[in-house]
Amino acid sequence: MNHKPLILVTNDDGINAPGMRALVEVAQEFGDVIISAPDSPQSGQGHAITLKDPLRLKKVKLFEGSEAYECSGTPVDCVKLAKSVILKNREIDLCLSGINHGPNHSLNILYSGTMSAAMEASLEGIKSIGFSLLDFSWKADFEHCKPFIKELIEFVLGNNMSNCNLLNVNIPKVSDNKIKGFKVCRQAEARWVEEYVEGTDPYGQKYYWLTGNFVNEDHGSDTDVWALENNFISIVPSGHDLTNYKAMPDFKSLE
Amino acid sequence: MNHKPLILVTNDDGINAPGMRALVEVAQEFGDVIISAPDSPQSGQGHAITLKDPLRLKKVKLFEGSEAYECSGTPVDCVKLAKSVILKNREIDLCLSGINHGPNHSLNILYSGTMSAAMEASLEGIKSIGFSLLDFSWKADFEHCKPFIKELIEFVLGNNMSNCNLLNVNIPKVSDNKIKGFKVCRQAEARWVEEYVEGTDPYGQKYYWLTGNFVNEDHGSDTDVWALENNFISIVPSGHDLTNYKAMPDFKSLE
Repeated sequence: MNHKPLILVTNDDGINAPGMRALVEVAQEFGDVIISAPDSPQSGQGHAITLKDPLRLKKVKLFEGSEAYECSGTPVDCVKLAKSVILKNREIDLCLSGINHGPNHSLNILYSGTMSAAMEASLEGIKSIGFSLLDFSWKADFEHCKPFIKELIEFVLGNNMSNCNLLNVNIPKVSDNKIKGFKVCRQAEARWVEEYVEGTDPYGQKYYWLTGNFVNEDHGSDTDVWALENNFISIVPSGHDLTNYKAMPDFKSLE
Repeated sequence: MNHKPLILVTNDDGINAPGMRALVEVAQEFGDVIISAPDSPQSGQGHAITLKDPLRLKKVKLFEGSEAYECSGTPVDCVKLAKSVILKNREIDLCLSGINHGPNHSLNILYSGTMSAAMEASLEGIKSIGFSLLDFSWKADFEHCKPFIKELIEFVLGNNMSNCNLLNVNIPKVSDNKIKGFKVCRQAEARWVEEYVEGTDPYGQKYYWLTGNFVNEDHGSDTDVWALENNFISIVPSGHDLTNYKAMPDFKSLE
């Protein structure tokens, strides 16, 4: 790369999230940083895009040395707006999403706005990394994440990533001297067991509010959940091709 | 299967969509049908779930012979509510989503509420099929789809689908005598080229409204887009594992 990299930073917790600030601080060491992020928390928005409503974009002064825009849409909308409107289709060298407050390992890649934003950039051929810390707290300490994120950005900017331009990275909630390093993993085969809290609103109408427990039924030691439980930072090389190639012959008799 | 199958029908176009009615009519030939679908159109909602707000569920009389519930959430919410609240974790034998008004081939599986609903059921171990007709019109004619959908449901109910319990099925907009049959495909490597319509609202605020053109850059004759262009019904065996296994060695040096 002969030029200063252009780096897009986004997230799903909203532009004011401390995790985003930590990521911007690291990104600024590597190139010109543009921030395009939701104006409100968008956790669980998955790959949703806004079709029925117009979107708003507002330039905000939040990060010294970088232009920042808050957007009224979903995380995927933020990436699309950044590419088409803010950057007018200039080439983006890297997209960083996060640092998410809370895990996005295993099947959570499907629900996660953080990962969907990174995936959206990767669909455009942009090298993309989604980062998550296993700490839901707004006061989470992201300092110990920074050297690892730095190492990963260096690696990604220095490699062509022709086989894969999307990484799902989760960081355990332990001090940096306890982190054992990176582990390249597959997505664990886990699931959510849902429970709805039932109640009655002030107007007498019944409601259901989603809660759930995460259950990992995958006992492999090559998964992201295993890596995190053992104090590794999990790296899952990811993509957007959901074809189940192995199962294709099972349906050939229909042809 | 020794009992009458329990079939969940959902969609993303909303419970009043003609495509859903066509699917319910076919499903009723195979078992007990329960409908749980959004109370308003939810296209482009992807795998979004509702976390910040309570959900509402209303029993409606819309389909002779089947219980139907309209839900205030996303397509994925509809499936979760059906499983936990409506059916109280009774075993569901099959989930059918659609028939979507418009295509959900290639990368559209990521944005599609129809496919995300089917995927959500498949995550619960339920055999699931998402159906889409390549016709956006509310007046689309679904009659020619029915015999093919019937054949597919018979196949799926009669097989264990241990390698794959999620199918993405797209049907071309041609008369049934022109349809050449089923083709088992991979997801085409295509993309959207976005354009935002910019305008000013009645209050003087600038807005951006998403539009886009679908571009297929994949010239393979084994893709869903190819199959549809050649008047086949495309079947893409799908899943939820986004791990890029092939690329894992590329990142091992980070460990």
